[in-house]
Amino acid sequence: MSMLPNPLEVRSRDHDILDLFLQRWSPRALSGEAVNEEDLLRLFEAARWAPSTYNEQEWRFLYAKKGTPHWDTFFGVLLEANQVWCKDAAYLIAVVARETFVRNGNPNPVAILDTGAAMQNLLLQAAHLNLVAHPMAGFDWEGGPKTFNIPDGFRLTAMIAVGKPGNPETLPAELAEREQPTERKPLEKIAREGTFSFEE
Amino acid sequence: MSMLPNPLEVRSRDHDILDLFLQRWSPRALSGEAVNEEDLLRLFEAARWAPSTYNEQEWRFLYAKKGTPHWDTFFGVLLEANQVWCKDAAYLIAVVARETFVRNGNPNPVAILDTGAAMQNLLLQAAHLNLVAHPMAGFDWEGGPKTFNIPDGFRLTAMIAVGKPGNPETLPAELAEREQPTERKPLEKIAREGTFSFEE
Repeated sequence: MSMLPNPLEVRSRDHDILDLFLQRWSPRALSGEAVNEEDLLRLFEAARWAPSTYNEQEWRFLYAKKGTPHWDTFFGVLLEANQVWCKDAAYLIAVVARETFVRNGNPNPVAILDTGAAMQNLLLQAAHLNLVAHPMAGFDWEGGPKTFNIPDGFRLTAMIAVGKPGNPETLPAELAEREQPTERKPLEKIAREGTFSFEE
Repeated sequence: MSMLPNPLEVRSRDHDILDLFLQRWSPRALSGEAVNEEDLLRLFEAARWAPSTYNEQEWRFLYAKKGTPHWDTFFGVLLEANQVWCKDAAYLIAVVARETFVRNGNPNPVAILDTGAAMQNLLLQAAHLNLVAHPMAGFDWEGGPKTFNIPDGFRLTAMIAVGKPGNPETLPAELAEREQPTERKPLEKIAREGTFSFEE
């Protein structure tokens, strides 16, 4: 049974927006239960409808289901700090971007940005299904692309752990402590009228 | 009055997902009406809750309201092909990413990806409010960063036109013809079990 906090009770918004954006967060407590394949496909279906330049749809998703040989491959690409809790995920996903245009082979300056948009659709759909979908930058950036056979012109951009929410008490103490939805900077630190005037 | 097609009547999904993802599309027909500032702030508020590595919140948004001196600056960065229809937007937004970690100054490998996730929240919230929010790669990539005074370590990644939906008949004929929500590749072209096996 999940004992995870409800982000809607923890986070406060300054302007009225859809609950969905606050509901999405990145827990580490996973139950170890399976997630049915139809739910996984819903995540990719959501990703599919993101916007992209010239409708290039630069995003590609590779996945591995727990208990399959593919799982061992994917799991081995994660840093140990993520393996500690990802062992209880149901799926691991690798997020890949096509860096050149299909139309002419030129570099696509928004390939990664568009892929981030698709990833966000995936994460939001997962939140809607009460699934954990936790994106990670903590993996082997150098060896990962070779392990996944990612060809030239494509780039590994992130990995995602997907699973059912679990009990934070099953996590190592230092991770259990951090099992709270994060807050955000004040809006004026990220949005301003006119040219760049942020102080950092 | 808007005569834009309803994406939910045009697009079909293969797996059950939230309508919101299909409702979001990128029209060019804008009414020229103002959008109130509170609605604009809702878009940034949605962006704010995207995930980011170490909660770095790498995204920054600059904006200009139609009729202000800032507008002329932002509008001038767009390519002519976008100026043609962006003249009827209410706001123009420049999407910027912090490319290095606040914590240690090192390059952040997911800065652009995370910024794409924040952008997608913004676009989805706009769709929910029945606003047009159309992301663009068609701007002056070389001169834009200087015009916006974007400092070293930050990168201009996209621009977005925000406005109220308009009548496609007011667009030049070749744009009016394209004023339809786009389709998507079959799911098996973007998601696969195991290592990279897409044929492209």
